[in-house]
This record gives sequence, C-alpha cells and structure tokens, in this order.
Amino acid sequence: MNERRVWVNQALDQFLPGEDTPPAPLHQAIRYSVLSEGKRLRPILCMAACEALGGDPRRALGFGCALEYLHAYSLIHDDLPAVDNDDFRRGRPTNHKVFGETLAIFAGDALNTEAFALLVRSARENGFQPSVALAVIEELAKAAGFDGMVAGQVLDLAKQKEPCSAAELDFIHRRKTAALIRAAARIGALAAEAGQRDLERISRYGEAIGLAFQIVDDLLDEKESDRKNQSATYVSVHGREAARTRAAELCDQALAAIEPLGRPAEPLAGLARYIVDRKT
Amino acid sequence: MNERRVWVNQALDQFLPGEDTPPAPLHQAIRYSVLSEGKRLRPILCMAACEALGGDPRRALGFGCALEYLHAYSLIHDDLPAVDNDDFRRGRPTNHKVFGETLAIFAGDALNTEAFALLVRSARENGFQPSVALAVIEELAKAAGFDGMVAGQVLDLAKQKEPCSAAELDFIHRRKTAALIRAAARIGALAAEAGQRDLERISRYGEAIGLAFQIVDDLLDEKESDRKNQSATYVSVHGREAARTRAAELCDQALAAIEPLGRPAEPLAGLARYIVDRKT
Repeated sequence: MNERRVWVNQALDQFLPGEDTPPAPLHQAIRYSVLSEGKRLRPILCMAACEALGGDPRRALGFGCALEYLHAYSLIHDDLPAVDNDDFRRGRPTNHKVFGETLAIFAGDALNTEAFALLVRSARENGFQPSVALAVIEELAKAAGFDGMVAGQVLDLAKQKEPCSAAELDFIHRRKTAALIRAAARIGALAAEAGQRDLERISRYGEAIGLAFQIVDDLLDEKESDRKNQSATYVSVHGREAARTRAAELCDQALAAIEPLGRPAEPLAGLARYIVDRKT
Repeated sequence: MNERRVWVNQALDQFLPGEDTPPAPLHQAIRYSVLSEGKRLRPILCMAACEALGGDPRRALGFGCALEYLHAYSLIHDDLPAVDNDDFRRGRPTNHKVFGETLAIFAGDALNTEAFALLVRSARENGFQPSVALAVIEELAKAAGFDGMVAGQVLDLAKQKEPCSAAELDFIHRRKTAALIRAAARIGALAAEAGQRDLERISRYGEAIGLAFQIVDDLLDEKESDRKNQSATYVSVHGREAARTRAAELCDQALAAIEPLGRPAEPLAGLARYIVDRKT
C-alpha cells in the first residue's frame, strides 16, 4: 500500500498545475488540500480492483487521481463555515482557514470539474476505448451527483437538527461515503474491462467496504473528545457493540464477494481488512 | 429564439429530479435556480451552432442543458456571501437567501457534477459516437475548470481590491465569461460532427461573442445605481466609448468567422447581433 501511495502522490503532483500558474492563489489552495497527507484509499482501491481483474494497475492511476480530486473537493466544501465549520483536518488548518472562504469555494469547484477533464485525459493517454472512458465518467458523476455523495451530505446535515432513523442513516452512509468508494472499485474494474459478472462482484465488495469505512469512522470519532460535528452516527443510532459487529459482517461480505477472483484479489482483501482494523 | 427557449425550459424540467426526490430541500434549491427565468443563451447557442453545420439542433438539446447546469452552478456560487454577496438575481432572492448558504453550496456542487452525467446520458440517448461524447465532455470540463471559468472568477475577485491592467481584464473576460460561451458553440459544432476547419470557425465566433457579451454586460451594469460588485470592467478600464466600439468590432469578427457557412448559420448571426444590441 505504501508503494502505491507514493505513485498516487507523485501522479497528483504532476497532474496539478504548479503553484505559479495564474491565478496563483487558486493553485496554491488546490495543491494545499490535494497534496496534504492522506490515505489515498480511493486511488489505491481503484488500482487494486483493476489488478484483481487482470488489468495493469498503472493504467488506472490517472482515474484514481480523478477520484482523489473529487474527494478533495468534498472535504474542502465540507469544512466550510456554512457546512461543518471545521478549523482543522489531518492535523493542519482547513483550506478556508489558510486561503479564505472564497478561494476554498473556488478550489473545490475547480477540482469537482477537473476530475472529469482528468478522466478524459487519462483515458486518452492510457489508450482506453472511448466507450470505457464514458462508462468511467458516468460512474464518477453518478456517485458524486444528485443521488450520490451530495444527497448524503445534505441529509446528514439536516439530521444534525432532528432525529435520524436507521433507514435515514443507511441512506446517508450509502451516499455520503459508500458511493465514491464503490465507484473507485468499479472504475478500477472498468479499467480492466471487466465483464458484467465481475463488475457486480466488485460492486458488492465496494458497497460493503464503503459502509464499513463509515462505521469505523464513527467508532473512531466517538473517541475524540473535541467532536464538533453533531451528525447521527452508526454508534449513536445502533450503539458501539452493534457497530463493531456490523463492520465485521460487512468485511466478511466484501471478502466473500471477491473470493471467486482468487489470488489477484489479495490486495483488495487486504484493503477490506485494513479498513475495518485501522486506528486512524 | 423564443421557441428554442421553450424547448430548453421543458427539457431542463424533465432532466431535473422532481421536488419530492429525497433529499427534497436539495432538489427544491436546484430547481429554484435552474428553472428561474433566464435567456438560455448557452443552450440556444449550442443548438444554433449544431444547425449551422448541418446537424439536427434537437440532438444538441441535452448537451445545451448540461451547459445550463454548469452556468446555474456558477451563478449560485457567485452570489454566495463569501463571493459577490448578492441578495437578488433576475429579480428574485438569490439561492442562499431562500435556502440558506449550506444548501446553496451543495446545489451548486451537485449541478457542477451532474452536468457531466447529463452529457453522458444525452450522448447515449441521441446515439452519438463515444468519441464525440468524450470530446464534448473535455470541452465543458476545460472551459469551466483550472484554466477556465473558475480561474477568471478568482482573478476577478482579486482585482476588486487592486488595480486591474488591460491584460488582466482580458484574462478574466476570456475565462470568466467567454470560455463557457465558446464551449457552448463548440459543443454544438461537435454534435454536428464538424471538421477541424468548421470547428475553428465556430471557435472564433464563440470567443468573439463571449467577449462581446461581457463588454455589453459591463455597459449595462454601469447604468445600475445599486452596483455592489466592484469588479474591474471593460468600461472602468477602457471607457464607455471604447467599450461600445470594441463590442461592435467583436460582433463583426464573429459574423466574419461564420460567413462561409452561409444560410444555415443565420441563427448564429442573429445571436451575435442580439448579444450586442440587447438591453438586459
């Protein structure tokens, strides 16, 4: 995983315009967030899914970086005063704390749009069929759009002020977190030109680890005494014990889904275990 | 033009999720802005460019609606308190005034992303080759991204606090306004499977009317006594007389660029004249 993280960091650094590109403050704000320390889970997952289905993971690297642009935009906008109003992320001041709210809004907007330009560019540079590129673009747009990530974020915020049912929590988690993680896995599978059956396996895997990721986040968040964000969490709705059990169940489901893929899926299996066992 | 505006309004209404789609407040906020009264210049232009090159304008309607999504997102975010802080647009309260800042941010974000989903969907429904669809997607992403619309908006805001040179003003106008208008025309041309030479004609036309549109906006804005926005304008940098002369020149350039296309380009010529002569 560490080697792949280095690939991702290097590729992101190369794809992003330099800090002197006009208007310089915009590119400084973008690079500050995208190049900050991160797990790079989505790009690494995208490459692992590609590999699991016999594809060359390097061909999925650019797609993975586009997923990271999308993820970075969502974090920048989530931290804004009008959303979660967070001052710190990954131990550093949030984007708007350093660059101001206006630039933080525009940096996020630009990353949202450019994710799609990067998908097109990367598809061309890696010799993908246009039809594969289109499927990848649709996957990302749907995961992040009207019925994807944004829908989850909006309901999440609404539920900070009113009770959240188990069904609503599930709606939120499937969209806010699982949609983009599932899309990362599916895009990797598309990059390997997966057939329908393998694509469904990867979808089940991606959905399960996406939901598990959020539950583990909720468990880890509980420990933080300075929790500002009053979102409903799996722990607040179902309790700690149920959360631990559910995360383990989802990990098992993810592993079962990719079991038929055998040895090439070992990195995917490792990622599922990492997600459930992680401490940060 | 009125007939085409009706087509666009009907298509937008059909493409957008209904107001009851969960989460309902998000879709109410999106529909409030996208379906408000507007000139629909970009979709109409996209269809006219398609027609000018022998294509069926109806096939470009969905692409035009995606341009309108992108445009609507940019207006919602431009009006935010941290950007231009505008309370009214097109005679109605701005999005954040009605739905709050959080929903306005997310409504804009969702439209930015969904513009790309709509391009894919519309390409499929209208039987476009995947390679054409990819060219259209790249066109929109580049026009709106790092070196497009957002770059222009960022420099525009920076120049509200410091002197703006003629070269900087040109940088701003080419990106903030002309990039998306040019893209609208080029996307229409791509939808007609234009050859390189015709695509270049349409590009020159689009760039010229895009710049003219901004100069005329600047002239019209000067008349408004309640101008809040302290952007540098063509009028503030070059004076009213030079602005009028330049707008007329640009209109002539646009007409000259499409002159070889003959009669089918008459609607495009009409749009160029409309842009320079308009009073709102």
